[in-house]
Amino acid sequence: MTIARTDLPDLADGLLQAFTDVRSLTERLAGLLSPEDQTAQSMPDASPTKWHRAHTTWFFEEFLLSPTAGYTAYDPTFRYLFNSYYDQVGPRHPRSERGLVTRPGTVEIERYRCHVDTAMADLVRSGGDQREAELVRLGLHHEQQHQELLVMDAKHLLSKHPFGPALVPAPADEPEDATAPAPLGWRGIEGGLVEVGHDAREHGFAYDNESPRHRVWLEPFEVADRPVTNADWRAFIADGGYDRPELWLSDGWATVKQDGWRAPGYWRERDGEWWVFTCSGERPLRAAEPVCHVSFYEADAYARWAGARLPTEAEWEHAAAGLDRLAQAGGTPGRTPTGWTALDPLRMHPELARAGVLGQVWEWTSSAYLPYPGFSPPEGAVGEYNGKFMCDQHVLRGSSCVTPAGHQRLTYRNFFPAGARWAFSGLRLARDAGR
Amino acid sequence: MTIARTDLPDLADGLLQAFTDVRSLTERLAGLLSPEDQTAQSMPDASPTKWHRAHTTWFFEEFLLSPTAGYTAYDPTFRYLFNSYYDQVGPRHPRSERGLVTRPGTVEIERYRCHVDTAMADLVRSGGDQREAELVRLGLHHEQQHQELLVMDAKHLLSKHPFGPALVPAPADEPEDATAPAPLGWRGIEGGLVEVGHDAREHGFAYDNESPRHRVWLEPFEVADRPVTNADWRAFIADGGYDRPELWLSDGWATVKQDGWRAPGYWRERDGEWWVFTCSGERPLRAAEPVCHVSFYEADAYARWAGARLPTEAEWEHAAAGLDRLAQAGGTPGRTPTGWTALDPLRMHPELARAGVLGQVWEWTSSAYLPYPGFSPPEGAVGEYNGKFMCDQHVLRGSSCVTPAGHQRLTYRNFFPAGARWAFSGLRLARDAGR
Amino acid sequence: MTIARTDLPDLADGLLQAFTDVRSLTERLAGLLSPEDQTAQSMPDASPTKWHRAHTTWFFEEFLLSPTAGYTAYDPTFRYLFNSYYDQVGPRHPRSERGLVTRPGTVEIERYRCHVDTAMADLVRSGGDQREAELVRLGLHHEQQHQELLVMDAKHLLSKHPFGPALVPAPADEPEDATAPAPLGWRGIEGGLVEVGHDAREHGFAYDNESPRHRVWLEPFEVADRPVTNADWRAFIADGGYDRPELWLSDGWATVKQDGWRAPGYWRERDGEWWVFTCSGERPLRAAEPVCHVSFYEADAYARWAGARLPTEAEWEHAAAGLDRLAQAGGTPGRTPTGWTALDPLRMHPELARAGVLGQVWEWTSSAYLPYPGFSPPEGAVGEYNGKFMCDQHVLRGSSCVTPAGHQRLTYRNFFPAGARWAFSGLRLARDAGR
Amino acid sequence: MTIARTDLPDLADGLLQAFTDVRSLTERLAGLLSPEDQTAQSMPDASPTKWHRAHTTWFFEEFLLSPTAGYTAYDPTFRYLFNSYYDQVGPRHPRSERGLVTRPGTVEIERYRCHVDTAMADLVRSGGDQREAELVRLGLHHEQQHQELLVMDAKHLLSKHPFGPALVPAPADEPEDATAPAPLGWRGIEGGLVEVGHDAREHGFAYDNESPRHRVWLEPFEVADRPVTNADWRAFIADGGYDRPELWLSDGWATVKQDGWRAPGYWRERDGEWWVFTCSGERPLRAAEPVCHVSFYEADAYARWAGARLPTEAEWEHAAAGLDRLAQAGGTPGRTPTGWTALDPLRMHPELARAGVLGQVWEWTSSAYLPYPGFSPPEGAVGEYNGKFMCDQHVLRGSSCVTPAGHQRLTYRNFFPAGARWAFSGLRLARDAGR
Repeated sequence: MTIARTDLPDLADGLLQAFTDVRSLTERLAGLLSPEDQTAQSMPDASPTKWHRAHTTWFFEEFLLSPTAGYTAYDPTFRYLFNSYYDQVGPRHPRSERGLVTRPGTVEIERYRCHVDTAMADLVRSGGDQREAELVRLGLHHEQQHQELLVMDAKHLLSKHPFGPALVPAPADEPEDATAPAPLGWRGIEGGLVEVGHDAREHGFAYDNESPRHRVWLEPFEVADRPVTNADWRAFIADGGYDRPELWLSDGWATVKQDGWRAPGYWRERDGEWWVFTCSGERPLRAAEPVCHVSFYEADAYARWAGARLPTEAEWEHAAAGLDRLAQAGGTPGRTPTGWTALDPLRMHPELARAGVLGQVWEWTSSAYLPYPGFSPPEGAVGEYNGKFMCDQHVLRGSSCVTPAGHQRLTYRNFFPAGARWAFSGLRLARDAGR
Repeated sequence: MTIARTDLPDLADGLLQAFTDVRSLTERLAGLLSPEDQTAQSMPDASPTKWHRAHTTWFFEEFLLSPTAGYTAYDPTFRYLFNSYYDQVGPRHPRSERGLVTRPGTVEIERYRCHVDTAMADLVRSGGDQREAELVRLGLHHEQQHQELLVMDAKHLLSKHPFGPALVPAPADEPEDATAPAPLGWRGIEGGLVEVGHDAREHGFAYDNESPRHRVWLEPFEVADRPVTNADWRAFIADGGYDRPELWLSDGWATVKQDGWRAPGYWRERDGEWWVFTCSGERPLRAAEPVCHVSFYEADAYARWAGARLPTEAEWEHAAAGLDRLAQAGGTPGRTPTGWTALDPLRMHPELARAGVLGQVWEWTSSAYLPYPGFSPPEGAVGEYNGKFMCDQHVLRGSSCVTPAGHQRLTYRNFFPAGARWAFSGLRLARDAGR
Repeated sequence: MTIARTDLPDLADGLLQAFTDVRSLTERLAGLLSPEDQTAQSMPDASPTKWHRAHTTWFFEEFLLSPTAGYTAYDPTFRYLFNSYYDQVGPRHPRSERGLVTRPGTVEIERYRCHVDTAMADLVRSGGDQREAELVRLGLHHEQQHQELLVMDAKHLLSKHPFGPALVPAPADEPEDATAPAPLGWRGIEGGLVEVGHDAREHGFAYDNESPRHRVWLEPFEVADRPVTNADWRAFIADGGYDRPELWLSDGWATVKQDGWRAPGYWRERDGEWWVFTCSGERPLRAAEPVCHVSFYEADAYARWAGARLPTEAEWEHAAAGLDRLAQAGGTPGRTPTGWTALDPLRMHPELARAGVLGQVWEWTSSAYLPYPGFSPPEGAVGEYNGKFMCDQHVLRGSSCVTPAGHQRLTYRNFFPAGARWAFSGLRLARDAGR
Repeated sequence: MTIARTDLPDLADGLLQAFTDVRSLTERLAGLLSPEDQTAQSMPDASPTKWHRAHTTWFFEEFLLSPTAGYTAYDPTFRYLFNSYYDQVGPRHPRSERGLVTRPGTVEIERYRCHVDTAMADLVRSGGDQREAELVRLGLHHEQQHQELLVMDAKHLLSKHPFGPALVPAPADEPEDATAPAPLGWRGIEGGLVEVGHDAREHGFAYDNESPRHRVWLEPFEVADRPVTNADWRAFIADGGYDRPELWLSDGWATVKQDGWRAPGYWRERDGEWWVFTCSGERPLRAAEPVCHVSFYEADAYARWAGARLPTEAEWEHAAAGLDRLAQAGGTPGRTPTGWTALDPLRMHPELARAGVLGQVWEWTSSAYLPYPGFSPPEGAVGEYNGKFMCDQHVLRGSSCVTPAGHQRLTYRNFFPAGARWAFSGLRLARDAGR
């Protein structure tokens, strides 16, 4: 459970390199998809790939280039087309109709990216002020976030295809599924009056919602030393997990009934065997891998079934911070050992699952996504980034195998609605001490 | 901001009297409504009056009488018809179709209540064990909760009638609206490591969700000395409150647009004047009364507009507890000065609004409705009472002018979804200290 | 297949008697239902009983009394509440919210009926002009139509109750189901240039949509001598009728899939036996009775399966007219032998089913409900009675066991959407001659 | 009002040429659209361009090649993906999700078309039997029908784009809008016992729904000598056409209210001027052009407002047949003077509008789409082509400016639901003689 801080630099030189790296990765990901793939929108919550490519570009144009003297917008209509949810920027195209905006096409969007990248390179090279550098960094973290969304959305789209095509080829060295998961261990944490959240005085980037660092009282608790695995989840199913209302939140049970849930997202049963749809298409489920694509409702029900609970986000962060210190002291690299070559947790090696290293699946916490005490968003449209979503969402911590390197952070607060399953989301159990 | 603890007794004698009192009040409330009124269901969230009458009766039959040797159920079909949401009891009629169950009618339900009341009187008189006494008390608090729902639902139904009929006649001594609301004052609270929640070792009833009492760290804060008033709200409207997305949570703004909100629930504008639909029909809005029938979204937006915020539920309880102690020391009666003769906050005297006494409107907090640390629901179906709703709901504290006397409690946690407006819900501002 | 013309008189004396008779029957039907039953609306297409009672009264008030000097409306709000669909009268309450208008209640509506009946008796006694007498007759036929709707809607409401209560007690002399249906016979009809529709020069009432009488060319055809029976329908089911898309219209097949149709409306299978919900509650299906509560989609699919087709409405009328002449020549009374004591075709004696007499079930035709050549509706709001519904509806001919005596007519055009099943609707087969 | 019979040949040589011509036209049309454009589905009723390309190809593969010994399907999954609605062929992909099938992409579909075209060329050259030749002709007419749908669907998609891109460039010689439409003239038609429908003994292709030729009785009537124009429609709007419920069918009025219709489809008002979205983007409305993109509801309401009515389809065909004979006798070429260079009626020259020539807009009739007397569909899946849609659809006659040359036919029966507006649909008035 170790998260490295591999932050993006803020010096001009380093920043330009970071800019180039992040922007390139988006294009490499998009390159896995045809113009047709990049156009479709598989549900209102998802966006077309080409929209992600344009929207992340628009972010730099809107917040950095447009205020700059002498800059000419690539196309004035893009301000309307590629604004996601910034009300203070102006009107925008309805989210649910992004799949109908077939123009600009992928080639035109490539040109748009080049136009903006050129102007951005000038701006970054010219040094700029501190605020600009911070906005560039925000824009890069924003783009990294969209890289993960891009993969999530593409996987969802491909899963809707009746013949399940692959986003990336399966690796040649696919592991066997012979290994059983490690037995679950518990790690005790003392609690007390602890501090969580991002410390603004510290070096390093964080989103506004991670601040301010503040005090929280924690009673002693224990946290599992590995995430819940597919093998665990099969036991839950076998024990009637999806048939026993007493395990579920009321809204969760209603969703189970309405949507006919019988297993995590992308699981498919055929002739008594479980298969799973991955970014490399369908393959047999592997017992030792962490369970993925479960909703908050399912995570909560599983924890209740297991006689445990989800950790709060403060518990999670406090426990992970301890490990992080240990890891740094011990000289372990502390890097999440996954990269963009592994686009799917279900392609992860079982050894990694056993290692208990974060970075395979996001982990649901029991916390509602709310402002930290003393939170206040930045002035202007950028302030809409996080705060206005602090209602009826649930916090996930850690990172996943499709989170870009450099985007993991101990204080990172990811969030989704309780029924969402298209993120790479799993869970880790916790329980009160002394049970 | 004072809440008395006027609890229901647990001795046999006193309990029987309490039983009779609570059960009678339900019938008196229902007596305001014709058989036709009692049948209709105005939205899926609301229930017909006659359903409330039968369901509260079923609660005693299911949890107390049915396990008793020798008891014969009044009608075995009622177990299906009048179970609200207890999955462990068995299948139940869909909530959204309660308005189609025209049989049993009101007379039959009256007979059902008599049948159960007779058997319950025997059971209570016979002494019973501690667990039974606790279930009776739970049943009575349950019925009190439904008394408030009954009024909320009836008001909603009558509001859907195009000619706005009254539930109760308007009082003869209607106050003038000459008085302006008192200016808003702030009260500073120190914070620190405080305790909140119900202490199980203390005498007195509480729902399971109010336990266990636990420690919370609070930074210093301030709380307003009166709720937000109609006059305040008109200023919010006049300043474009419903037209400025930057004031709103994202989901709240979407709801404003979709449902066309321009004012609180039951407000109606005609010829530039504001009218309000009350339990006595429509009348002009009164400036000094606390605003009522606002959603969490609106309360949150108002607080942002006012440069303040909503209190957390821990802040609210800690602040109110201090006042409670003061009130008790000073010998003030501490009783909420409202009763069932005042069925509508909008009929409250402005003096009361000025007094800052709780009990006029429920007050939204910023807290999501979540389990307290260490919470565990009781075994069996009764355990479904509260815990399974702890998801995407928001806590309100205090009580309203239609909360039955004896149902107020300092640690009481009421909850509704963020968009609900048919409860008698208002708000009180808070802010960080030192601003 | 005989329909008598048992028309309502147009002389003052006889008209008053007819007025009293028709108005009384409505009240006797409503008397089977409690105030609670009369309030509920089980689907947007159905209306509460008490609404039918008020709306039929409003019709007389609006079109006859309100234009009369000196008449005072019983309650001016009723013009809004009880207008069904007459745009030229003014705004009206939304149809789907009729179940929420709990006031006026049943007693108030009884008073309203008395008020209007008294004024109407004066008006009819005073003689009036020809147009008034025609409007009274229209109002009475309108009320008879609503009597059938009242029974349809009440049956539908009771069927939604989980324990299936009865509208009327089952008769003591329930027939056995020993008899098989009569074998199907065919009657040849010559065709040619025939006349159909109501002849305005003839004595007797007809709705505007039955005029003008006009010429139609018919090729020779054959028509079955009895309706399709429950036994026939079971053969259709056994042969995969609901599983074979090739038998169905495209929209019909989509409805079968979406609504999960496996049998006619109100049929219920338990342990391999078919039961049917009737106005006297549930009882075993009887083989020899005409099938009832089938949609146009089902009637059409059945006919295709049987190697036949539905008759056009012109074929139906032309064939029935011939039988009518025969019946009149032979001195048979020609009266439909059903009355209000038999509220359900499923309670009909099998002998009647064998007799091939119309009046048990409405019979779907293959004709879309369109204006006759030269059709023009009357001036004013009364002109909205029929014409504006001539789109995407399908014609049924004959009458049913719940059609009030005196409301049957050879030229009568009933109509419903293709998917409707809550009318007492069956079918009779036809086929081209020479097959 | 003249329709030429420019049929596809049935000899092997000619048939191969026809095959090549029709197949090429589809590709030329699709060539106007990028891969992104070809992927999106703008509403459930519309299909992506690339789906049209694949589905028309599948038709030949399924009905001609697959039954042929030695043929290897290009891709066995295409049988599922590109079946439109043929239940007897097997399961198929849900229509509303065609926009999510991003694979195969446009290049793959081009290869599919080549594969099938090669095999088809062999099959056609080899002579084949009569049934095969008929199926080829059916397939070509099917593809022509989809060519028109392709344009309709593409226009609809582009219209959903907020900046209204063009499918084809506007022509250089755009006409002025100086000319007023010709005054409306009436042509009297005698009626009597007439014959309509396709005569199977005659040379030439027709769909099954155009047969059998049969006798219909028509009373004398008159028909307008030109379609209703934009100028006419503006008078309808100015006279409150969209505000007067008495002009509308009940369902039509409900649609006007629900969808907020104030003008025909693709009309847009800005600063008091009417603009229209065409296949070449937006431009000012032209008074003399026939009104287009009106629904059946609107056509019916307009006719009522004009004191006229729509013709029945028998009247339309009988009237047009007379003109056709005249045209042929007079040596006029009788060809619809529009081709694929004119992709939009709104780009038509006003002279054409004045000439009263069919082929600019489909013309709504008052007839429901029902089987002709004696109609029976072919055996097998091909029998699903037309018959199963004969319910709640309305017949349009003639052809439009985007109907491919060779696809017009006097007896052609086009059909759409009453509320559809994305076809190139207008109207021509009729009235009873002697008015």
